[in-house]
Amino acid sequence: MSRLTAEANGVFVISVTPFHENGAIDFDSLDRVTDFYLEKGATGITVLGMMGEAPKLTQAEAREIVARVIKRAGGKPVVAGVSAPGLAAISELSSAVMDMGAAGVMIAPPSSLRTDDQIAGYYAQACQAAGDGVPVVLQDFPLSTGVQISNATLGRIIEDNDQIVMLKHEDWPGLAKISALRKAESEGRRRISILCGNGALFLPEEMGRGADGAMTGFGYPEMMAEVVALAGNGEMDRAQDLFDAYLPLVRYEQQPGLGLAVRKHVLARRGAIASAALRKPGAGLQPAAIAEVERLIERQTKKLKELK
Amino acid sequence: MSRLTAEANGVFVISVTPFHENGAIDFDSLDRVTDFYLEKGATGITVLGMMGEAPKLTQAEAREIVARVIKRAGGKPVVAGVSAPGLAAISELSSAVMDMGAAGVMIAPPSSLRTDDQIAGYYAQACQAAGDGVPVVLQDFPLSTGVQISNATLGRIIEDNDQIVMLKHEDWPGLAKISALRKAESEGRRRISILCGNGALFLPEEMGRGADGAMTGFGYPEMMAEVVALAGNGEMDRAQDLFDAYLPLVRYEQQPGLGLAVRKHVLARRGAIASAALRKPGAGLQPAAIAEVERLIERQTKKLKELK
Amino acid sequence: MSRLTAEANGVFVISVTPFHENGAIDFDSLDRVTDFYLEKGATGITVLGMMGEAPKLTQAEAREIVARVIKRAGGKPVVAGVSAPGLAAISELSSAVMDMGAAGVMIAPPSSLRTDDQIAGYYAQACQAAGDGVPVVLQDFPLSTGVQISNATLGRIIEDNDQIVMLKHEDWPGLAKISALRKAESEGRRRISILCGNGALFLPEEMGRGADGAMTGFGYPEMMAEVVALAGNGEMDRAQDLFDAYLPLVRYEQQPGLGLAVRKHVLARRGAIASAALRKPGAGLQPAAIAEVERLIERQTKKLKELK
Amino acid sequence: MSRLTAEANGVFVISVTPFHENGAIDFDSLDRVTDFYLEKGATGITVLGMMGEAPKLTQAEAREIVARVIKRAGGKPVVAGVSAPGLAAISELSSAVMDMGAAGVMIAPPSSLRTDDQIAGYYAQACQAAGDGVPVVLQDFPLSTGVQISNATLGRIIEDNDQIVMLKHEDWPGLAKISALRKAESEGRRRISILCGNGALFLPEEMGRGADGAMTGFGYPEMMAEVVALAGNGEMDRAQDLFDAYLPLVRYEQQPGLGLAVRKHVLARRGAIASAALRKPGAGLQPAAIAEVERLIERQTKKLKELK
Repeated sequence: MSRLTAEANGVFVISVTPFHENGAIDFDSLDRVTDFYLEKGATGITVLGMMGEAPKLTQAEAREIVARVIKRAGGKPVVAGVSAPGLAAISELSSAVMDMGAAGVMIAPPSSLRTDDQIAGYYAQACQAAGDGVPVVLQDFPLSTGVQISNATLGRIIEDNDQIVMLKHEDWPGLAKISALRKAESEGRRRISILCGNGALFLPEEMGRGADGAMTGFGYPEMMAEVVALAGNGEMDRAQDLFDAYLPLVRYEQQPGLGLAVRKHVLARRGAIASAALRKPGAGLQPAAIAEVERLIERQTKKLKELK
Repeated sequence: MSRLTAEANGVFVISVTPFHENGAIDFDSLDRVTDFYLEKGATGITVLGMMGEAPKLTQAEAREIVARVIKRAGGKPVVAGVSAPGLAAISELSSAVMDMGAAGVMIAPPSSLRTDDQIAGYYAQACQAAGDGVPVVLQDFPLSTGVQISNATLGRIIEDNDQIVMLKHEDWPGLAKISALRKAESEGRRRISILCGNGALFLPEEMGRGADGAMTGFGYPEMMAEVVALAGNGEMDRAQDLFDAYLPLVRYEQQPGLGLAVRKHVLARRGAIASAALRKPGAGLQPAAIAEVERLIERQTKKLKELK
Repeated sequence: MSRLTAEANGVFVISVTPFHENGAIDFDSLDRVTDFYLEKGATGITVLGMMGEAPKLTQAEAREIVARVIKRAGGKPVVAGVSAPGLAAISELSSAVMDMGAAGVMIAPPSSLRTDDQIAGYYAQACQAAGDGVPVVLQDFPLSTGVQISNATLGRIIEDNDQIVMLKHEDWPGLAKISALRKAESEGRRRISILCGNGALFLPEEMGRGADGAMTGFGYPEMMAEVVALAGNGEMDRAQDLFDAYLPLVRYEQQPGLGLAVRKHVLARRGAIASAALRKPGAGLQPAAIAEVERLIERQTKKLKELK
Repeated sequence: MSRLTAEANGVFVISVTPFHENGAIDFDSLDRVTDFYLEKGATGITVLGMMGEAPKLTQAEAREIVARVIKRAGGKPVVAGVSAPGLAAISELSSAVMDMGAAGVMIAPPSSLRTDDQIAGYYAQACQAAGDGVPVVLQDFPLSTGVQISNATLGRIIEDNDQIVMLKHEDWPGLAKISALRKAESEGRRRISILCGNGALFLPEEMGRGADGAMTGFGYPEMMAEVVALAGNGEMDRAQDLFDAYLPLVRYEQQPGLGLAVRKHVLARRGAIASAALRKPGAGLQPAAIAEVERLIERQTKKLKELK
């Protein structure tokens, strides 16, 4: 099974975890949504992310999900989130998923970290816990973690830990961070892959700054695949036209807390999963929200037709 | 001078504070941007908000700004932010601005509040500090304050404090909160005005849920005025079409931290203020960001032409 | 195996987890420290607490520790911390430890909770996750969790969830909360056990307010047992005299972050565990700190002699 | 009027602000408590600290207090807290108090700072705002500010800003930070004064690590003066004996939130201020707490007699 490298690009969709109405994992839907993501242009899949309801799973469930998606993805790279409060849990889960054939693991910093040294020290320990040579994705998401990683500290972490081959970039605002990374690389620092998050809300600009693609979720992952492809061909205007058509829904799906219910509603509506249910304590969409989503989708469909 | 009531509607633009390059307040530009806001359709103006760089001002400066804007606004209602760590400072500033002819004051909760009782207790004390009968706008902005006000607690605060005539709504996600407020009012609770924030990122949906307008900033305030007007006429599709044309820039201006520099750049570009300078420690836009903004404006202009 | 009830009292020591220098769990020392706690007067033991380095353990290790301590404790009640980001993990661990014979489980609120309803809702779900009829200890520790539970909300949780039989009280300042709880009980609310935390820093006053004992750690657990016993006999002055003799060290051991290293140093020095090692990323005591601890112990020994 | 230097030592008491029952400042009591502090051995006084209820004052009141205390202190150095959300407010207040004859100003970091560069950058700007050559006390109090300053960053700030002549040390645990500072100075970095906070809870150990004294409050400031003097003479055992006699009350007064009410109760009881009233929203002590304080004072008095 191929391992993640610093050359990785395209779209790694953050997969949802489908549940039955009773809260049990719906493995048939997990197969179906895996197929769906790949059909819509994903170059890889990331499981056990925050939007995959990872903290709501037991460890046994988490492993079953990773195994199932790897099997179904048929050789496409699968990254597994292994963030945990302690290094032993990271080590255990990382070892398990790499044995199953994962392409790498993703680690966000625990929210207790504050100083630059604490952050850098943490990633040295986390890389060791992930396992010798295991490719690591650094998830930089201050809005959620409360941890701010400066350009200098990020550079130091990259230089000190060869295992870190990718940045899941979702600092916000973070466009300048992409530019700073690419500038440092042009001056000699080793290259890493930059895949962007934040529900793709800034994807055209991020591609313009030198990102390699996206690692996030959205009910219409084909948008991300097409924007990344068009940007890769230098067709920035067409990329932006397409993006703009989806933007009202991207924005709506980006609402903290509510966003995942929107995404699952869209995926269920598109037949990619059987039920939009979230595992407790998550709640589904209220009728007024569903009506808003439906209206946005209708308008989006119309705009997409006009683009062709 | 008219005072704010629970019937207020339209767009209260959160005014920027223009500075010279050396950090001094640019009062000529303050006059000009006040005119600009009103010409573009504002029904009122809010000064000393978070996006008005209020914490960077001395108290003397803060008062001068309020006086100047009230004078220039020619009778249009001016709301002043008076949030402060202590009640004495709130009382002092509120008394001063009401004497100058402000229409009301806006108060956000201090970030130390946690329990429902603490929040409700705080607003009872803050209303008293604001002064007997002074109209108060409750700013509900958890992303910035860290304080979450439940529907029940918000209802209790409204019932206990007649002075609170308006909600500056920027909970996120907050659409359901608007619906809950309106439902409670339909069942007998007294009505308050709801003006929405968050840079207008959800304005069409917020109007659809029953909001009375917007109280936020954006480099093109005419968008907010037109969307609110169209929504008021029930022309939701036209409102959304217009909104969508501006959305790429709305989104770009909504980046935490960076957003104000974008807004000031746009306002300076449009001639509403002389300089895009932020008072220290704020920083201006880098060239790459300026290029992105220019590109978005160019595309926006084109889309707006197509709409006509 | 006996289950925890609302009549529980005495001292439930929060057990350390002994490690070898290489980071492996030292099960022989775990046996020894279990014996030590019971010999020094503990009426029960709590494992997998924050000071038990629980987040640094794998789930398999966590279960092994619970099983080992239950076996060694010879019928004395053992409470297991099962706090986790998700309900599924709570359910899984709770079910496992209760099967092993635990007396109950302890649950702290996740730091994302803010409003009263969120907190009350969480405990309803958490009790269900813990399992039907499983005795639950509510850990109220705002300094660590950031979650503030008002007296009213605490009362509502107690009334709504019969499973909650005990409060691990470490709000700070929290003496008034004990008084409020006991007052509500005197007026008819069902009784719960109150065992106090915070490293016993306020134990005499807490007993005076109506607490039933302590659930915390300290290198000299006999102090807690004796203070609780003396207070139970109404000998408050003798209780305080004894407490005062230990207070300089209690205070030193209460330093956030550093405290556990102090505690393990003392336990190792007393022969209760083989090594003072913390699992990474924890660090041991520096020589200057060891000298300070030694000096405090020497003075403490002298004072205790004078007391007799 | 003398200015603060890096050689400062002894005890700078953090002064309370006395209020009448109706919330007005009690200037007679302010004079009296200033005398009291100096009679009890203070070498200086710090006003407008967090425990001086500074955020509850208007700016005019704040200035009046500084002027009054400077006048009454008769040449003893007075430090004024000037922390504020913005640099302009710091500049304005710093300029005002230095004109009145203050010995220096104290600045804590705003809680928004995270990365090392942000913290270092802030102090460069804050020193400039304080005014050219104005002596600055850096208040390092992570428990309250949420800002963690590493040893390396603290060193960088000291090296970059000659104005910083003193550290108000209340990191917790922070003993190692004192040792690290003194070590760097022994290796060539310029010396700064270290006065310790945290209600003197670790004063003997702090003096042992090389601190120059205390800058904090306690109802019996003579304890701090005597402990600092004894430690200065190398009489560490007598220092600790004295400290231990006061420790039960030190601990009780250290309760977050409640502590100031305890301190004011003690000061009122000792005749240093007329009323223990806190300005709203602060609350006074409940009867049960008063009884606890009285009991601690009675025991303390007895122990002090035994020491002689």
